[in-house]
Parts: sequence; structure tokens; C-alpha cells
Amino acid sequence: MIVVMRTGSTEEDVRRIEEHLHERGLNAQLNQGVERTVLGVLGEIYEDLKDELELMQGVGEVFRISKPYKLASREFKNEDTVVHIGKDRVPIGGGHFTVFAGPCAVESEEQTVTTAIAVKKAGANVLRGGAFKPRSSPYSFRGLFEDGLKILKTASEESGLPIITEVMSPRDVELVGRYADVLQIGARNMQNFSLLDEVGLTDIPVMVKRGMSATYEDWILAAEYVMASGNQQVILTERGIRTFETYTRNTLDLNAIPAVRSLSHLPIVADPSHGTGKWHMVTPLAMAAAAVGADGLIIEVHPNPDVARCDGAQSLTFENFAALMDSVTAIRATMNGPQGRPDASGL
Amino acid sequence: MIVVMRTGSTEEDVRRIEEHLHERGLNAQLNQGVERTVLGVLGEIYEDLKDELELMQGVGEVFRISKPYKLASREFKNEDTVVHIGKDRVPIGGGHFTVFAGPCAVESEEQTVTTAIAVKKAGANVLRGGAFKPRSSPYSFRGLFEDGLKILKTASEESGLPIITEVMSPRDVELVGRYADVLQIGARNMQNFSLLDEVGLTDIPVMVKRGMSATYEDWILAAEYVMASGNQQVILTERGIRTFETYTRNTLDLNAIPAVRSLSHLPIVADPSHGTGKWHMVTPLAMAAAAVGADGLIIEVHPNPDVARCDGAQSLTFENFAALMDSVTAIRATMNGPQGRPDASGL
Amino acid sequence: MIVVMRTGSTEEDVRRIEEHLHERGLNAQLNQGVERTVLGVLGEIYEDLKDELELMQGVGEVFRISKPYKLASREFKNEDTVVHIGKDRVPIGGGHFTVFAGPCAVESEEQTVTTAIAVKKAGANVLRGGAFKPRSSPYSFRGLFEDGLKILKTASEESGLPIITEVMSPRDVELVGRYADVLQIGARNMQNFSLLDEVGLTDIPVMVKRGMSATYEDWILAAEYVMASGNQQVILTERGIRTFETYTRNTLDLNAIPAVRSLSHLPIVADPSHGTGKWHMVTPLAMAAAAVGADGLIIEVHPNPDVARCDGAQSLTFENFAALMDSVTAIRATMNGPQGRPDASGL
Amino acid sequence: MIVVMRTGSTEEDVRRIEEHLHERGLNAQLNQGVERTVLGVLGEIYEDLKDELELMQGVGEVFRISKPYKLASREFKNEDTVVHIGKDRVPIGGGHFTVFAGPCAVESEEQTVTTAIAVKKAGANVLRGGAFKPRSSPYSFRGLFEDGLKILKTASEESGLPIITEVMSPRDVELVGRYADVLQIGARNMQNFSLLDEVGLTDIPVMVKRGMSATYEDWILAAEYVMASGNQQVILTERGIRTFETYTRNTLDLNAIPAVRSLSHLPIVADPSHGTGKWHMVTPLAMAAAAVGADGLIIEVHPNPDVARCDGAQSLTFENFAALMDSVTAIRATMNGPQGRPDASGL
Repeated sequence: MIVVMRTGSTEEDVRRIEEHLHERGLNAQLNQGVERTVLGVLGEIYEDLKDELELMQGVGEVFRISKPYKLASREFKNEDTVVHIGKDRVPIGGGHFTVFAGPCAVESEEQTVTTAIAVKKAGANVLRGGAFKPRSSPYSFRGLFEDGLKILKTASEESGLPIITEVMSPRDVELVGRYADVLQIGARNMQNFSLLDEVGLTDIPVMVKRGMSATYEDWILAAEYVMASGNQQVILTERGIRTFETYTRNTLDLNAIPAVRSLSHLPIVADPSHGTGKWHMVTPLAMAAAAVGADGLIIEVHPNPDVARCDGAQSLTFENFAALMDSVTAIRATMNGPQGRPDASGL
Repeated sequence: MIVVMRTGSTEEDVRRIEEHLHERGLNAQLNQGVERTVLGVLGEIYEDLKDELELMQGVGEVFRISKPYKLASREFKNEDTVVHIGKDRVPIGGGHFTVFAGPCAVESEEQTVTTAIAVKKAGANVLRGGAFKPRSSPYSFRGLFEDGLKILKTASEESGLPIITEVMSPRDVELVGRYADVLQIGARNMQNFSLLDEVGLTDIPVMVKRGMSATYEDWILAAEYVMASGNQQVILTERGIRTFETYTRNTLDLNAIPAVRSLSHLPIVADPSHGTGKWHMVTPLAMAAAAVGADGLIIEVHPNPDVARCDGAQSLTFENFAALMDSVTAIRATMNGPQGRPDASGL
Repeated sequence: MIVVMRTGSTEEDVRRIEEHLHERGLNAQLNQGVERTVLGVLGEIYEDLKDELELMQGVGEVFRISKPYKLASREFKNEDTVVHIGKDRVPIGGGHFTVFAGPCAVESEEQTVTTAIAVKKAGANVLRGGAFKPRSSPYSFRGLFEDGLKILKTASEESGLPIITEVMSPRDVELVGRYADVLQIGARNMQNFSLLDEVGLTDIPVMVKRGMSATYEDWILAAEYVMASGNQQVILTERGIRTFETYTRNTLDLNAIPAVRSLSHLPIVADPSHGTGKWHMVTPLAMAAAAVGADGLIIEVHPNPDVARCDGAQSLTFENFAALMDSVTAIRATMNGPQGRPDASGL
Repeated sequence: MIVVMRTGSTEEDVRRIEEHLHERGLNAQLNQGVERTVLGVLGEIYEDLKDELELMQGVGEVFRISKPYKLASREFKNEDTVVHIGKDRVPIGGGHFTVFAGPCAVESEEQTVTTAIAVKKAGANVLRGGAFKPRSSPYSFRGLFEDGLKILKTASEESGLPIITEVMSPRDVELVGRYADVLQIGARNMQNFSLLDEVGLTDIPVMVKRGMSATYEDWILAAEYVMASGNQQVILTERGIRTFETYTRNTLDLNAIPAVRSLSHLPIVADPSHGTGKWHMVTPLAMAAAAVGADGLIIEVHPNPDVARCDGAQSLTFENFAALMDSVTAIRATMNGPQGRPDASGL
């Protein structure tokens, strides 16, 4: 349920409503937009609540949100959310275009630092790299754990890029959170609700990758878990779904970008590396993602993909990554909508 | 099996090989490329054939094609195929960008002619429109049949655009072929092999739309049917696959564009109208298709989508179509590869 | 729209309603059930029609069918349809259990006749065998065409079994219809609407196999095409859908049996040969199909699967087919519902 | 890598091999089968290892396992695994048929105890019930947590049935493990590798439900995680995959039963409640699961499905569950293979 405040309503009005809700075991989430102030009501809504609220001072309108997600919905918050990453507050969303790049896995300091410097030089904004790796087989390389986090920290200092890295367990959130500027929830953990709850308790931005068989609704609901737990800084990432096609590792679903944008105010990024699983398809799909209106990209880059300990087949060399950035930048420059986004649709 | 001729081989050498093959119940398909002359051998290959051919005059190399499709493969023919449409020989493939646009179904002369003129003005190259409509329900509007073809002809004359229209039955190929400049095979008929055989006997270009659950291999094999039947003028169209996602009508699979391009020399077009089923998503996905390297687009346009007899929800108004063309043109202008295609991949 | 006649209504009442409809450009399909007489109204329903019909003599109730299919729906016809096959009128549906068995493709008279005799001895009711074969590749064996049909005829005479065989093109319906007791529409042609229309004009029973990505609704609508064209003798066959799983050729969807039974009165058969693509899985899935309430099975059997010209990997030997029949018969004997169908569901 | 010991080899031979492996940083998992003793080698295999091991005393044969999973494979262990549940050591696998039944969620003591007694009376072997519930929306009922576990304990004591219940987080494994006789890993957590590792450290049997888009290989690898972590008591559960079909909640894939049985020695159970999402389809699919050779069933039962706090639409009443058990028992009685399993396949 949403309470839209009247123009001219006061902070005191809002406070009284919050108090009214708390007394009834409900929570309120405030969204102070440019044009309107909105309160989202969370918890078990009872029959008379709408009537009660409509009679309170400062209240303009009270209505139910039609979607199962509330805080993540455009109905609750119409303006694009801009998430800020790291101490330099690198923005993502709201017309900015933000590129996360780096190796699949942190293998060594040299590999990570050289990659960080190379992707920074080519124009990337955030360094990615896995220290805790989810692998289908228990016998595959599962990461360097805290040693990997330390290497990422060094690479961050050397390059000036903030860090995104995956966290796989609620127990590791505190540890990973000490190093990471963005906590990544992997596709396989998209419905690991304990983990979503836990990262929601931090104040670190969270990237929620779409599960392999998650509908748009499932995916936004996963973001809603983080938000309902208290953390509104969520980035969504399309990384390919599982279909019958086996030529590609997954099927990158670029329809998701305009579809989810119309449903949610959260920034949406595309991952053509996992989305295709083939390095020679990464650049064309990155270009397509820019053209379809994504808020950014996340790309796997490795100094020598042939010897990478994971995902070598989909990793770009430094040279190819630089070429990708040029192509993407050229496309972004043509985007004619407000904030460099396609607007021809008249949505 | 493929016979690559030696540099300096003669037409007489080729003729002798063809004769040798015919005597053994086999067929040959000649591809006279810029750099090399290649003969594709069709039919049941027997053990000694390779040895026999390697000994013949003018033969450079003989090898098996590793893919189940032969004539459609890059191994057989490395250069992009350029298909020419209609009496003005509108090109598609090989770096050209070709837009097919028009109503889902031909409803009336006025609707079709005004649409033809509008899409032509906005920059479309070919008029689309259905006279024979495949509909999931037998009770839906199934088209105007020959009356519809006649209307298309009028619209073609008024606008100067050649026509693409669907043919659904081998029995109708002759009739539809009298009007159409491109014969369209719909997604539901992609494995209607009798129909593929039949259109392969004509000399009219054929568009093969990808079936809803067709792998890239299935789809190229459908093109191979047409080619094996004698018609090499085939265009492939990605129009969305069926996945678990229900928000969109289908899931437009843009990965198909670079993937199929690496496997086949045939031109590949994207259909964001059927691929998404929602008009407000058509322009962003059209832009993405241009950026990913498609050879063209096929777009549903209607003077008044709200009253369209089919697919109104995914049809663009004239105004929105013109805006789409502007956005797509701007993106095409940035494409830095040879022939305006992404080349950063280093494929 | 459905018109349910009042108890005690006369044939004259029905005739007058039909006349009323015809005068308005509509068609009527009569279903004379045990408990009630129902008229299905086909065509474009106009606003006042319901009122007009309710006032006519003999009419009990008039209501719209909520599903897009009409004639195939349980709402129109509550009793199970029993289709009768061949001159001996082998029944299928309504509690009978009917087994179609034979080779994927007719290869020779000996192969077909010995198989026919073997499957008949093991308890099969209908001989299957392909003379026109839909193959993904144009270079695969595509059948013996009319020679194959003649062989089937011989095998039918030798074994006493009626024949089911596939027809792939509207042009072949007359030819195949001269030999076949059931016309099979393959999965790839499930939405070949010209073909569905054409077989609907015959009085030969039609088996409609489910398309690889057809929903239950799509599939029943394909049957509706045949029925709307005039032929009510339709059998549905579940033969596996396309999913992400690659271990099996397709994913046999046994959920379809009780689901479609609740939606339609038509008999439903399972095809575990295509559904799994692995011979060692055919018998367990056939047993499951019997247990879930299928009206029958269609099974590929070959004298020597290792040398079969198509689908050898999924074909059973005579011995294994006989063992399958024993296992299935034992399960059928335990079925405790009316007509040997599971009824514990209380549906 | 697998070391098959020679007949007549001694425990001392095995001990020496284990020592050899430990010194090289590798682990060994012993499988003392009826016919042969096998050692699975876990860790990074180096080039000369095979030669070294083949020369050691008592060693018969050394070979690599072709599948990515080792301990779970039939190659490592040919005999069916029988898992024993609870203090009464209820067996599952190896020819036993074991039924898990109970409510989706524990709602109250009365609801849980009455259900436990009812399902026990009807023949169920294990009580199921969720205290920690994974829900797509954060606003849905998420369980009674430890209070729910206590209620399950009471219901277990009253009914004499052991308990299966879900654990969602590594942090909760200790707590849930104090109450549960089987730890359930839900479909959404199938690739929550931290959780798999953690339950692998306990000595409580673990049920691994198949993920919505998990291939057979992914699924067996999830079991391998638990086994590689030290716990060999794993049960697999097929609960439906996500496909394009929307009539059912999921698509129960009964092909999985014979397929996975041929690949792994672990017991496999079917969950027709989640697999279909519709109560009227549960019994037919349960019958099919029994017929296809499942080692058991897991069924949702509720005293009053209409008021259930979760999954009411797929829950059976006590009466319908009793009828299901009768139908399933009748089918099981006909199974003619060794250990009541289909054997006609000659696998």
C-alpha cells in the first residue's frame, strides 16, 4: 500500500503516519521524490487501514500497488534510482553508463593489478573479480577467499577503481563487506533468501544477478528482499537465461532491459560475458546492450584468457576490451533520449 | 563434401567434375567466390569419392564439411551472400541494412497503401503485409487471400516498394509467387519441409523465420532445405524464441545474430515486433539489433494500431516508426567494422 | 457460444436453431450426448445473439465457452470421445487402451511385415510406420513415399492391424488417405494450418502430435482446426517438449495427460520413444504413461534397431516391446477408476 | 580417479594407498561394495598418479571417471545406496518405496499433529513440514522458525514418524539439525554451495531437490558437493522444472527418474505436489512416478487446503492422500523387476 502525501504536507504529518503504522505492527518506507512524497506501507495490510490513512492530515491519496514487489516498483518511486559506488561515489543509473570489468577469478596479484590498470585505462569504472567462486563442480577452483579480497584491495588502490566481488554465504557478508564497494549476488543465489536478507542489513550497494530461470518478476522480488531488509542501493544485472539453445552458454535476454526499466526504478546492467560464454560474441552484445538502454556493462577481462583458471572462453584480452569500449562509447553518443536513453518508444 | 579448385583451374575442369558426380548419382553446387571456386557435393557420399576427386585435374583440396548443413555454411562459402529483392534489386546482406515494414495483415487498400507510403517515406526498403495469416485459433481473422495479394500489388506500385508476404502451403506457392518479391516462411512453418522444398523450386528470394523452439542448427538446416532444392536466395529472420518468460510474447534472441553470422553466409534480419509483442519495446530492441550487427529489420506498422485486426499491441504508429528509423540510422553510422558491422571481436 | 437444449426438446427445435444461425452466416455443430443435446455456434458472434437464442423453443441455456477452443472443449462435450480406427473399428478413448507400434520408417517389406506381425502378437492394436519422413536435414533419408504406403498396406493385410502414417503436405492428403486408417500430423507440422484444414476435410481419424514448444492450449487449438474443418475424429499425442535438458532427446511431459483430459474430451496418447530418444527409457516411461491415465501408447519397434535408417537409438527390439506390453498390462489392471483411469483425484 | 582393489586385497593394502594419497595432498573415499572394493581419489590428480597406484599392492585397476561427478556416479559405486532415516532407520533406495508427507508449512501444533497422524495411518513413512520457508516475495509467510521445529518434534513423537524439514542457511544447519531426521535443500538453494558444504559436514541424511533449471548433471553435482564434504547419505528429488508451459506450476520431469538412476546410485524421489501445482493432478502423477521406478514420493497434505498458509492449491486432503496411497500401492505390487523396479529395459 502506498500513501501519497498532499502538496504542502509537513514532516510532522509524515511522522504521525509512521507512528500510526508502527503502533499497528507495520513498517513504512519513505520516498521523498522531486515531485511527490510517498510512503510505502510494509507488512500485513488489514481491511480498514486505507480508510484510516485517508483521514489523516497531509494525506493525498492511498492505493494498493498492483505488483507483488513494492519498494522496487515504478509505482512507488517514479524517478530512476542512482546508486553511488565507493568513496568516489561512482554513479550508476539515471542516465550514467557504468562499466564493471576485470577477471572472472582473482588468481594472483599481478594478474589482478595489471587487469585493473588496463580496464581503468580503457574507461572502466569499477573493478570486478571473484574471490569466492560458485562452481558447478566441487572439484573446480573455488577462489582464493580472503587472500583474493586482499589482492582486490591492492588492485583497487593501484588503479583507483572501486571493487565489486561476490558473496556466497550470509556468514561471509561481514568479511566481504570489509573489502567490497559492491556486493554481488550471483545468479545461482538469486533466491538464496537468507543471503538477500543479510546483504540488506548492510549499507553497501548490492548487485542482484538474474537467476537462470527467473522471470522478471522473480528477479525484481529478489531485489525487493534486499530493499525490504533496509538497503535501497540495488543494481540489477541481466546475465543470460537458460533456454534450449546450446550454442551459447546462456541466452542473454536484452528484452529484459526495457521491460524491467518500465517496471522498476533500479539501474540495470548487462553481462554479455556470461550471457554468451563466447568471447567473440561479447562485443556485439555489449554494443546491443548499450543501444537497448542498459545502464552499464559487466565484462570479463583477463591478461591471457587461454590460461585463465575460470571462464577463459568468454574473457576478453585488454586489446579487445579497449575496442569494445570504443564501439560502445560511439553508440552511447547517438542515444537521443533524455539521459542518453532510447525514448522513441514514447513510453 | 567440398571440392576447392586450384588457382588457375578452368571451367572445363569444373565441368568434368560435375559430370563425374552426376554419373554417380550425386549433385554439385558451384560457388564461384572472389578468392576461390568451390564445388559442394550433395547426395550420399561413398568411401572412395574423396580419393577419386583429389586425383582429378584442377582440384586443390577435398574435405568434408563438419556441419550438418553444407550450402548455407561459411565453410562452403566464405563471402556474405547478398540477396537482391524485386525489379529494383534492393540488396540485403554484405553490409547493406534493409528494413521491411508494414501491417501484420492486409485489411484494406487504404490501410495498406497509406502504410506503404508512410514507411517508404521514413526509409523502409520493402513492404511487408500478410494476405495468408497463420493464426493459433481457426476462428481468428485468417487474411484476405488473393484479394490481399492484389492490394499489396497496388501498394507496391503506389509506393515503389517491393513486397514480402507469407506463403503457408505448397499449393499456394505459385499464386503467392505471382505477387511477392520475397516469399516469407513463418516461424510455425519453419520445419514444414514440403513447403521449404517447394519455395526452393522458385527463383524468388525466401525469408525463413526462426521457429519458436528451433536451435541455430535447426534454423540453418531449414534454409539448407530451400538451397538444396535449388534456390540460394535465402534470408534468415530472428523473431524470438519461446522461453519461460511471459512478460514478453517471445524472447527476441539477439545472440543469434553474431552466432549465426559466424556459421553461415546468409543475411540475418531481426523482428522486434514479434520478438517482444509490445510496441513500446520495439524501438529499443530495433536499436539493439542494429548495434549487434543485423542485416536489417522487419517491423509491424499500422495507421491505427488500436483497431488492427491482428497484432495491434506490437504495431508502431507511422510517427513511432519514423523515430525508430532515425535512432537506428544514428547507430548504424557509428558501426566501425568493414561494411558497418561490429568487428572488434576479431573473429 | 453453446446452446444447451431443454430435456424434451425435439429435432425440429434443433433444426430451427440451425436455420436461424445459417441465415446469420453462422455454423452449428451438434453434440447429441447421453445426458444432453448441445449445439456449438461457430463464427462471429454478435451482441444480440444470446438473447435471440434464449427465446427460441427447446432452448435451455445459452453460454459462452471460456476457452479459445470450442468443439474440443469439455464444456461443449462432456463425455470422452471414442475414435474408431479402420474397418475393424479399433476403439481409442473412453477407457480403452490402444497401442500403436512399428518402425520409425518403412524401409522394406520384410522389415515392415515382420514388425507388424511381432507387435500384433505382443498385443499392439495399430501399426505405425513412416513413408513420408520429416527430417531436420534435407540429406537424411526422407522415406519411400508411395512405395512405403504400399508396403504398409501389405503389412496391414498380413497382420490384420490398421495403419497410422504421417502426412506432411496438403497435396499428399488424398494419396496418403487412400492407404492410412489414421493420418498422423507430426510435431513439426502441428501449426501447419493448411494441412490441418485439409485433413479436417476427410473422414479419416487424425492424430495431432504436440509441437515441441506448444502449450496445452496451442495443441488443443490445432485439434480444433481439424474439427472446425469438419472432422471430429481427433487423437492427441504427447511426444515430448523441448527444454534445456539435453540428456534426453525431448522431455516427455506426462503432466499433459491429466491436464489435457480435464480440458478436452479427445483421447490422449503418449509417445515415450520420441519423448526420451533412448530405448532403455521407453519402457519405464510407457509404464508411467499407463499409470497417469493415457488412452494409449505409440512405440517405435524395429527388428534390428542398430541398423535402422532412422531413430534406431530409441527403437525397441521385438523382445523388449513384448516385455513392455506385459508391464503396461499389469499396471492397467490395477487402475481403479471408472474405465480403468485414475479417479482418486476427485476431479 | 578410481582405484578398484583386487579380490583378496587386504585392509592394510587399502590403508597404504590412503596414506600414499594423503601424503600427496589428496583424499580418498572408500566404497566397500558386495562385489568389489573401490577407492575414489579426490583432489587435483597429477600425471604420474595412475602409474604409481597401479604398482601398489592389492590394486586391480585404476581409471578415470568420465563424468564430472565422482562419488555420486554409478561408475564409482554400482550398488544402489540405501539411506536410513531417523532412529527407526526408515530405509529409502535399493527397492524400498518411501513416502514423505505433510503440510507445506507448519502453521500450528494441531494442524501438524493431526496431519502427521493421518498420513502415518495412510502409510506415509516420514513427516514433512516447513519451519523455514523460501518464498518468492519477502512479504509472504516465511515460517514459524524454531517454534515450527518444536511443533514438528511433537508431531514426530505423537505419530512415530521421523521428520524432514528445510534448511535455508549455513548458519541454521546446527539448529535445524537438532530437530530434523533429514535436512531438505530446496530447489532455489540447489546451487547454494556454502549450504551444500555445510550440510555435508553433518551426519544427517540430506535431500537435494532439483533446481528449476538444473540439468541432470548440475543436480548430481549438487549431491556431489554434499558427498565431497563428507556426507554420503543423499536423496535426490525431482520436483518439476521450469518450461514454457504455464498451465502447471512446474513441469514434473519423470524422465529424470530412469535417467538419473542410470547415472547415479543415489535414491530418487518424485514431488508431484510442486511438480504440478494442482491438487487434482497429484495422484495421477504420483501413480506415474511409482510406475516409472521412483524410490518414493513427497506429498503435501493439509487438514483443510482451502485455508493453508502456503501451497493450498496443490495440497491433498487426508481422504485424497489415503486414496493416493492405495493407488500407488497397487501399482507398486505389479512392478516385475528385481526390487520392484521396471526392468524390461534390459539396461
